[in-house]
Amino acid sequence: MAKPAKSNGAVTGRNPQRTRARILSAALQEFATNGFAGARVDAIARRAAINKRMLYHYFGDKEGLFRAVLRRKIAERQAWAEGLSGDPVESLPFWFNLSCKDADWIRLLEWEALQEAHKKVIDGKSRRALVMEVLDRIRKQQALGYLSSEFEPGHLLLAMRSLTMFPMAFPQLTRLFTNRSVSDSHFQKQHVEFLKKFAAAFQPAGGRRNKTNSKN
Amino acid sequence: MAKPAKSNGAVTGRNPQRTRARILSAALQEFATNGFAGARVDAIARRAAINKRMLYHYFGDKEGLFRAVLRRKIAERQAWAEGLSGDPVESLPFWFNLSCKDADWIRLLEWEALQEAHKKVIDGKSRRALVMEVLDRIRKQQALGYLSSEFEPGHLLLAMRSLTMFPMAFPQLTRLFTNRSVSDSHFQKQHVEFLKKFAAAFQPAGGRRNKTNSKN
Repeated sequence: MAKPAKSNGAVTGRNPQRTRARILSAALQEFATNGFAGARVDAIARRAAINKRMLYHYFGDKEGLFRAVLRRKIAERQAWAEGLSGDPVESLPFWFNLSCKDADWIRLLEWEALQEAHKKVIDGKSRRALVMEVLDRIRKQQALGYLSSEFEPGHLLLAMRSLTMFPMAFPQLTRLFTNRSVSDSHFQKQHVEFLKKFAAAFQPAGGRRNKTNSKN
Repeated sequence: MAKPAKSNGAVTGRNPQRTRARILSAALQEFATNGFAGARVDAIARRAAINKRMLYHYFGDKEGLFRAVLRRKIAERQAWAEGLSGDPVESLPFWFNLSCKDADWIRLLEWEALQEAHKKVIDGKSRRALVMEVLDRIRKQQALGYLSSEFEPGHLLLAMRSLTMFPMAFPQLTRLFTNRSVSDSHFQKQHVEFLKKFAAAFQPAGGRRNKTNSKN
């Protein structure tokens, strides 16, 4: 007997894993478009083609849903970064390319910045725990000589994220400064070249000199 | 005869300069809080304690008002930057401190990024003209040896703005990464120290090496 064709229509809830994933994708899109305050659970249910009661059953409320979206997105980004060496010549272009592909994530953070400025950050405890792991990794990379020990890890992380997320976070400034759209492949290629050179800023001064010498 | 005491109440419109300035301050606050799409001219008139008809008389419509806010803000920031040398050791901390004091401006740009992503940037022509002046200045600073000629001016400008605006643009990330608020003076002092060291990244390699040597 032939298997039934996959349906692109309503989710039936018979596969909870897939249903959850479908809801989370719909929620990410809605949050990225309208922010946490402006997002409507109705709209998410409609996008995910699922009953609103079912959605509440899975995630509790809008904040529960937002928390789940954040966690999934952070886990996804961590998985993407697996196997990345500590060398900023590699990691800066990597995170920049990721930002270019992941506009929804950047927009989500931007909404959070605008709307939650004076509130406690949602899911702050577990996000801070993850950042602590990243800071530990930076300390190891400093010890291994990939990153300069001259810089305090928190500020170093802030600078790396600044350089790789800003062009997508402010697409209008990217266009004003470079006369190209952030989604233009030519701009992205040029900026990767820029970041590769600029990566030397994060490397130990000795490492930088050695690198320059080895080219001559 | 004694001069009448300055009134903090309603603006009477007898001093057009001051009335304009008052409207523009109110508008900046309203746009920074609610974005261009969400801002209400009623609310701006109320904040400025002025008749709405008067406001339309001065600025035409909401977009006219937004354009005037942008121009005033950009002119103000240019004036602040007068007399700044081309040395990134000076200019990076300067622009970072400015961002910390100028949260409304950063928020305005953030709203613009979220809401106007696919539209033409408001007042794009004159903003691009101003950027062209900044790029010219960068080329001069490259020729003078303040900035490395290794980097294309547009990408260099993008990197400088990234490093100095990002901590205020994403206050929740600043807190997660450094465990301090972006408005915390201790954080700001530490980040200024970071940027002073990091400025070497923008300087010609020779300049950087000389600097390192002169310390020894």
